[in-house]
Amino acid sequence: METLNYLLGYPNLKVYQDTRYFKFSLDSILLPRFTTITKKAKNILDIGTGNAVIPVILSTRTDALIKGVEMQKEIASLGRKTIEYNNLENQITIIEDDIHNFYETCSTESFDIITCNPPYFKVNNNVHINECKEKAYARHELTLTLSDLMKISRKLLKNGGHISIVNRPERLVDIITLMRENNIEPKKIQFVYPKKGKDANILLIEGTKNGNPGIKILEPLYVYEEDKYTKQILEYFK
Amino acid sequence: METLNYLLGYPNLKVYQDTRYFKFSLDSILLPRFTTITKKAKNILDIGTGNAVIPVILSTRTDALIKGVEMQKEIASLGRKTIEYNNLENQITIIEDDIHNFYETCSTESFDIITCNPPYFKVNNNVHINECKEKAYARHELTLTLSDLMKISRKLLKNGGHISIVNRPERLVDIITLMRENNIEPKKIQFVYPKKGKDANILLIEGTKNGNPGIKILEPLYVYEEDKYTKQILEYFK
Repeated sequence: METLNYLLGYPNLKVYQDTRYFKFSLDSILLPRFTTITKKAKNILDIGTGNAVIPVILSTRTDALIKGVEMQKEIASLGRKTIEYNNLENQITIIEDDIHNFYETCSTESFDIITCNPPYFKVNNNVHINECKEKAYARHELTLTLSDLMKISRKLLKNGGHISIVNRPERLVDIITLMRENNIEPKKIQFVYPKKGKDANILLIEGTKNGNPGIKILEPLYVYEEDKYTKQILEYFK
Repeated sequence: METLNYLLGYPNLKVYQDTRYFKFSLDSILLPRFTTITKKAKNILDIGTGNAVIPVILSTRTDALIKGVEMQKEIASLGRKTIEYNNLENQITIIEDDIHNFYETCSTESFDIITCNPPYFKVNNNVHINECKEKAYARHELTLTLSDLMKISRKLLKNGGHISIVNRPERLVDIITLMRENNIEPKKIQFVYPKKGKDANILLIEGTKNGNPGIKILEPLYVYEEDKYTKQILEYFK
């Protein structure tokens, strides 16, 4: 079912969703807030853009042109509807393409910033893959691995440009080693905790192409307290 | 000046210090609490043990034999005095030796657990090195680099054994990549924040030799609130 939804903290924006495929989660709202936006940034790429929630939120923070690449036709169509609804056609373009193909045809050093909410789970023999293709591609590394993502970023980022991604904390070590292998230096991390007394369940991480070593661990975010959003998260999205 | 000091949270223990050299900090008290102690652990190694604060606290959690290696004569002597004062001679031994020499002469897979509060700072041309040798060795990577530490752990740890270290969060990426290069899989991290609104300033990290990928990010620790220890930290050290 197709629905039009508000975004926490953005009363003027709405995004289309299709509940058959997926609903965007907190992850996709946190990432575009976490991403460092430099004044000089002119071109941003969002990989696997889905219903374009990340580009739409980014547009509130920058005038840079934003491309969102999405390989699945019906989902790309949701993204376009979202952009039209919010009158952002001049700033955001949805490219219906496989990122691997886009990568091959795109010039090197084309982007100042790359964002991505990639599939979180490795594919192995024991894993259950959802029969709905749209859900499966979003959850499992069927079409895009972290290794692919870093290789793509290495080519497409300008020198000093950065990539911001959201993932599960369990993948921290994979992400850090893959970033370094691709000359992307991890520079900033924020962990998100569901509530006090629990381990982190969301990782936000940003790396800079050819950056110097040295990373900051930002203040943690707590999402819930007694089944309500915390003051911290409501304040964060004000 | 030599002094005998209480340890936060351990009313029955005291440690000797010499204020000419260094004072132990929160780092050395947090590490032995953070370290995973398995029931079957029989042998523990603390590298650069200083005044033996880490072994002394570990002794409250395990009956394993603990070796503390310390190359500096006067500091090793403080460590021995600490152990005698606390009547722990049967469990803890201070070995006055350079860890590189100890490493060469020690059998492979001798330890279940390694702990280390290593020097935090890289040595380069611009850096000021303290003229006091004891302070310099504790602060700067003059006698022990992170790379050395992981190489040493790779040899001395049993299969499935683990190393726990404390460091500055800035070194997270170096530590994770060096662990992986030495077949030590990072498994557990805790960040410590001086107070709300600040970046983390202490990193606790543990890795398992030949462990499976997958890491947990524990609840953060906040140390101060309005210039007093937080309830959380006082509770933690109860």
